[in-house]
Amino acid sequence: MTSRRTGVQSFERGLALLRAFGAERTAMTTAEAASAAGLTRAAARRLLMTLQEQGYAQFDGKRYTLTPRVLELGFAWLSAQPLFGVGEPVAKQLAERLNETVSIGTLDIPDVVYLVRALSSRALHLRVGPGTRIPAHTSSMGLILLGSLEPAQLDAFFKQWPRRRYTDRTPVEEGEVRALIEAAGRDGYCYLRGVMEDSIAGLSVPVRDRAKGRAIAALNVSTSLQRTSPEEAFAKLLPEMRAAAQSIEAALR
Amino acid sequence: MTSRRTGVQSFERGLALLRAFGAERTAMTTAEAASAAGLTRAAARRLLMTLQEQGYAQFDGKRYTLTPRVLELGFAWLSAQPLFGVGEPVAKQLAERLNETVSIGTLDIPDVVYLVRALSSRALHLRVGPGTRIPAHTSSMGLILLGSLEPAQLDAFFKQWPRRRYTDRTPVEEGEVRALIEAAGRDGYCYLRGVMEDSIAGLSVPVRDRAKGRAIAALNVSTSLQRTSPEEAFAKLLPEMRAAAQSIEAALR
Repeated sequence: MTSRRTGVQSFERGLALLRAFGAERTAMTTAEAASAAGLTRAAARRLLMTLQEQGYAQFDGKRYTLTPRVLELGFAWLSAQPLFGVGEPVAKQLAERLNETVSIGTLDIPDVVYLVRALSSRALHLRVGPGTRIPAHTSSMGLILLGSLEPAQLDAFFKQWPRRRYTDRTPVEEGEVRALIEAAGRDGYCYLRGVMEDSIAGLSVPVRDRAKGRAIAALNVSTSLQRTSPEEAFAKLLPEMRAAAQSIEAALR
Repeated sequence: MTSRRTGVQSFERGLALLRAFGAERTAMTTAEAASAAGLTRAAARRLLMTLQEQGYAQFDGKRYTLTPRVLELGFAWLSAQPLFGVGEPVAKQLAERLNETVSIGTLDIPDVVYLVRALSSRALHLRVGPGTRIPAHTSSMGLILLGSLEPAQLDAFFKQWPRRRYTDRTPVEEGEVRALIEAAGRDGYCYLRGVMEDSIAGLSVPVRDRAKGRAIAALNVSTSLQRTSPEEAFAKLLPEMRAAAQSIEAALR
């Protein structure tokens, strides 16, 4: 394995341990952490003590929990992203104008990763924030971004994509997904309904690199199907979303 | 050193390398990364290759940059925090009602760490987001949280606090900071103006653990001094902020 040759195994294991702490596992004993990260107890114990010494974990005598300090590992990256600095205020203003939730996402194959999430004041929204990942083919943002890839990169996506069905509408055939990606690339927008959650629809447009014309991010409005018909979505949302994407593109130059 | 005995040195070094990528250093050669993280070039190269193999870094032939995947290291923690899930929608609603920026922060001595940041539509706000850290004694949130510590924990803070002066109003004498902390604990609110930035004032109230009565977080409204006088801040903001803090406390029970 490449990682055995060039990598540093305890660093890999430490990263696996950090990832093992999640929404379902916020506090773990050494044994639980070892099991969740696929490590021996001895290895897990050494890594947990390292996290504690560095201020990333706390130990109450029985279980380890992470501390707010772990945010520094990813947030320095996020706050340095021009897309975040430029995109966040634009998304916020658009969310207020439309009274809908606006997101900006980027591609990390096989997923879309949310960078910006501007909530509307409506109560209904999925519990996602920056860093949340969803399989790219289940998201209108993802289809837009996949539509801007070179053929070889797209083939790489299809080698990794998770064919799990989330709802009856989730596409699980490669041909079906390729047709959706092609349409998104051709149309310059993508509208999906009920793919991740039955009652939610999403409309996305690309944010393009002005030099190369590629989609470097997607701007998304998610809305409830009870509230907004597809026709309303196109007529009302699309022009505003394209203007917002253009203002981000201009500021990124 | 404790860390030599129990820790895993390459994990420590890998974490230092991740932290070295920041707002000022988004792309680094191996030599730059080694220098920034205090490592030898050989050690930095192995760790950077590990990050690349694990999908956390990209290499363009010359420089390494991090990928959106690094967000998973801190965001799983953030999204699992009850304070985040409960606090974010409350902060958002308050920001809309007041048309001011609302934040929720927690203590990680010697700093306050932002967990939630709900922007108002006004253009003026500091560029901070979740994970941003500021020295606790320079923030009304920090003084509220320090005011809820046991004496021994407070002494531990004073062993580590950075005595840097940010503006003419930044307190740099221990006695002065202790008096501010005591007042915040006694009054149940803290109002600071011009401590981090000349034109910004902040008002904070505690969010308390109902069982123990301790401040586990602080809710903050930051506002421009040109816009809102201290008298207006107290009359208009404080009752709304206390109601918001109570609704968070009730939901956390």
